[in-house]
Amino acid sequence: MRYDIAIIGTGPAGLSAAITAKIRNKSVLLIGNRDLSPKVTKAHAIQNYLGLPNIPGADLGAAFQASIDSVGVTVTEDKITAAYNLGDYYGLQGAETIYEASTLILATGMIPGKLLPGEEALLGRGVSYCATCDAALYRGKTVAVIGYSAKEEHEAAFLSEIAACVSYFPMYKDVESLPERVRVIREKPVEIRQENGLRQVVTAENRYGFDGVFILRDSISPGQLVPGLEIESNHVKVDRTMATNLPGCFACGDVVGLPYQYIKSAGEGNVAALSAAAYLDKKKREA
Amino acid sequence: MRYDIAIIGTGPAGLSAAITAKIRNKSVLLIGNRDLSPKVTKAHAIQNYLGLPNIPGADLGAAFQASIDSVGVTVTEDKITAAYNLGDYYGLQGAETIYEASTLILATGMIPGKLLPGEEALLGRGVSYCATCDAALYRGKTVAVIGYSAKEEHEAAFLSEIAACVSYFPMYKDVESLPERVRVIREKPVEIRQENGLRQVVTAENRYGFDGVFILRDSISPGQLVPGLEIESNHVKVDRTMATNLPGCFACGDVVGLPYQYIKSAGEGNVAALSAAAYLDKKKREA
Repeated sequence: MRYDIAIIGTGPAGLSAAITAKIRNKSVLLIGNRDLSPKVTKAHAIQNYLGLPNIPGADLGAAFQASIDSVGVTVTEDKITAAYNLGDYYGLQGAETIYEASTLILATGMIPGKLLPGEEALLGRGVSYCATCDAALYRGKTVAVIGYSAKEEHEAAFLSEIAACVSYFPMYKDVESLPERVRVIREKPVEIRQENGLRQVVTAENRYGFDGVFILRDSISPGQLVPGLEIESNHVKVDRTMATNLPGCFACGDVVGLPYQYIKSAGEGNVAALSAAAYLDKKKREA
Repeated sequence: MRYDIAIIGTGPAGLSAAITAKIRNKSVLLIGNRDLSPKVTKAHAIQNYLGLPNIPGADLGAAFQASIDSVGVTVTEDKITAAYNLGDYYGLQGAETIYEASTLILATGMIPGKLLPGEEALLGRGVSYCATCDAALYRGKTVAVIGYSAKEEHEAAFLSEIAACVSYFPMYKDVESLPERVRVIREKPVEIRQENGLRQVVTAENRYGFDGVFILRDSISPGQLVPGLEIESNHVKVDRTMATNLPGCFACGDVVGLPYQYIKSAGEGNVAALSAAAYLDKKKREA
């Protein structure tokens, strides 16, 4: 079977694309995780998803599930290791299956480089990837920011308006500009631990305790997934219709760039689906 | 008071921008309709707003209200007729108030249909969009009001207290309530002209001369609202950060282009707010 639209990724971008593709009467292959997005469901609470005020991550995950259920979309649990543009369609290499689809929507999210030991286990339990989302949890408390590039300094500055004390661990060379109230610690974190109710950032030299640890990265390589895909500043390059450089291939969500925000991803998923639908309809008219 | 961020529009784009701006610790002026978006609340049901499956418009409107309530954003009910880039900040002309804000987010919705021929050229030279602002110019003179909805009758009544003679051209079916001294002309204006020092309202049947012509619509096209704003294919031109050509001015939602979808607008509002916040923070660092 050749699907109209294959969507890789079951975060907000992929799910939003799937429901809009479905109500546009397209056949949809949605590939990802049956639990949808662990990043969503483990979030403590999301304050700025319009229409679902201050919603716990688990509830938001359930609401997303209800949305795909309502239009009859199901998740195919598989991992795509490569997707090839084969002229008229895309071939998707799964673990044991090769899928075919006329168009492809990449919603694979941010793929962090190497995780720090302890990071994954503590995600949502004192470790966060999003300052905007979780800052309010640390009002008057102590937080660490592990920043992988200078643009994360902006996030640390914002956190320092809310938290009592912010320590910044730069994972790069030159710190550009931080408010004085942010303490810069020039030691490389090698592990995150939970001890005595505090998160410990362990470096070669020391260990530091915090109420919360923000790990802010900006890394991904979707170019490996889809050969020929144009990448710009470490993200898939798209235009405002979410079209990539490859015909019939669209992308949305964290994979196309900052900000990493659920509602932004959901909005882009909608646009990608409508663009894919328009692409299919145009091809059909021309055939 | 100078706000950090002024947002014009209370549809999904403006509301999403407002809640994200607020949780980013910015002072927010949200200008629009206390009923938020009549277009949303009157919708039968929305099938593809991820997380709120198959939701009636009235319920979606209530969910939006709950969202702004949850972060303490309130709506300032006013109508902005012009917003000027004054170098370091924007000045916004309301009905009776001038507001100041360091940045501006335009979320004014879909651009109204066609302007009347001659309207744009005569704006500010006998053609006005704001009765409150310009009534005093026509004391003892003759004016026309071209009203696009019944709520403009209130403006015509007000003008009739000041002008010598008010003629009202309803661009809708049922006139609800006008003072007797307002003359109702049930002909459709097709053009505005300047002739012999008078503004002429041209209809299929006749032409009428006035000192001033008030054209009162729900929304003003953004190019007229913000002088100098770059428009492309009838929409505000933005980049992927939702920045317009004017420094500190961002736009989101239907006003920046298709598709006209709630979740797309909400996503763009989020991006616009974060871009405005980053712009403010950068300016602060450079100061």
